[in-house]
Amino acid sequence: MTPTDHGDPGDAPTLAPPLTDAHPAPRRSPAEEARTLVAQTNVATLASLTDGGDPWASFVTYGALADGSPVLCVSRLAEHGRNLAADPRASLAVVQPDPPGDPLASARVTLAGVARRPGGDDLVAAREAHLSAVPAAHVYIDFTDFTLWVLEVERARWVGGYGRMDSADADAYRSASPDPVASAAAGAVAHLNDDHADALLAMAQALGGFPDATAARCDGADRYGLDLQLDTPRGQAITRVGFAEANTAPDGLRAATVELTQRARAQPVR
Amino acid sequence: MTPTDHGDPGDAPTLAPPLTDAHPAPRRSPAEEARTLVAQTNVATLASLTDGGDPWASFVTYGALADGSPVLCVSRLAEHGRNLAADPRASLAVVQPDPPGDPLASARVTLAGVARRPGGDDLVAAREAHLSAVPAAHVYIDFTDFTLWVLEVERARWVGGYGRMDSADADAYRSASPDPVASAAAGAVAHLNDDHADALLAMAQALGGFPDATAARCDGADRYGLDLQLDTPRGQAITRVGFAEANTAPDGLRAATVELTQRARAQPVR
Repeated sequence: MTPTDHGDPGDAPTLAPPLTDAHPAPRRSPAEEARTLVAQTNVATLASLTDGGDPWASFVTYGALADGSPVLCVSRLAEHGRNLAADPRASLAVVQPDPPGDPLASARVTLAGVARRPGGDDLVAAREAHLSAVPAAHVYIDFTDFTLWVLEVERARWVGGYGRMDSADADAYRSASPDPVASAAAGAVAHLNDDHADALLAMAQALGGFPDATAARCDGADRYGLDLQLDTPRGQAITRVGFAEANTAPDGLRAATVELTQRARAQPVR
Repeated sequence: MTPTDHGDPGDAPTLAPPLTDAHPAPRRSPAEEARTLVAQTNVATLASLTDGGDPWASFVTYGALADGSPVLCVSRLAEHGRNLAADPRASLAVVQPDPPGDPLASARVTLAGVARRPGGDDLVAAREAHLSAVPAAHVYIDFTDFTLWVLEVERARWVGGYGRMDSADADAYRSASPDPVASAAAGAVAHLNDDHADALLAMAQALGGFPDATAARCDGADRYGLDLQLDTPRGQAITRVGFAEANTAPDGLRAATVELTQRARAQPVR
């Protein structure tokens, strides 16, 4: 019998439920999570197949085409280069850079598909994508034994940490876009917590469903909104507040957060 | 035709050769490099096989048994857990923590072999090894869907950065030991460069084969010796100086380096 849960003995902390309906606060889709993570770094681990069909894990660098397809540049002299040439089935695991202290709280994504050698204009775009992400590759990218490979993603599996995970198919992965505010988020979160705890509390009370919240800290910001951790007289709680519009530019968090604060303060509590 | 080199156009910088015979300075074996890297972190990427025999790359945590066999703790609810249960062939890629700016200068190792479920005393040792390396695992290691797997390493492939790579078989990998000074090395190197440039220069001149060196910087320390970068009137050079005895304790670098300095200064230059 396959177990369907973790057999949790039930000692996980409980969280206070909201008292009022929270305003809608969309989240990034699994495909957007995957695209965002893939855009955040240039190193990954490739799984390829040896000539005996055994799995082979190896460190690689990559860039990404506009549709998120990873572009590898590997030597035919290296085991993974020989593997791809003999059997193009491949998978790439990308892990959040600067991971948290608990490794399994890291965000990560597995892309699975088939590697192909680009040609023509496609080769030009692949070369440019790789060099843009891995500038040091200019030293060897034109060596005769190095080959560019584009991973045609057929399936993406995203894990956002404990209990947050989902899959995306090829179309969803390719048509999603990386979160434009991802690289600015950590700085924005620190600033909000340092200087705008009152604004965060107003958001939680007026928009987040917790009119009885007594303190709020932000622990995540993305194109669509803010994740908040709250103190209430009923215990700890979490909520999420959504921006009026999704951010489309890397510097959009400030204006979006100001709008959110104004909206929260204009709202009568309860 | 398989190319046998990189087709290098020949513009790599040249280094000045030594003028005298350098004293012997052994290096870590590939198996020792692999064991050292595996001992330095607790996160890796697993390559397993899907039910269609496709490669699947996924983030995992691990500890290691005394013989360097990695111990994974994965859920049967996760794709990689199902994969191992159906086909135990597996490979694990470990990458140097705190990598250098150029990703391909990173040290990394691929271990390939077969995963087995430990039992009896072996299970106790595996559980202890995993918990010791991944303390957060105490939360889930006893959940009914989590299984410990020991990777029986059949082959290790180490890459130390550009142009440094070699393989080790199972016996060499298991019988090697991690470098005991690995975690102290970066601090020792910084201290030598900050406060003991004269000692490094004496080592290079008297023991390293470069009596004409005019400056020396240390860019690596390990159980067996120091790697030095030199200025000479003939251009840049590199050399290595070996300790009188291999270090066996984490705090051995200071005494070993003092001995090396005394030996260098006792030696007439030229």
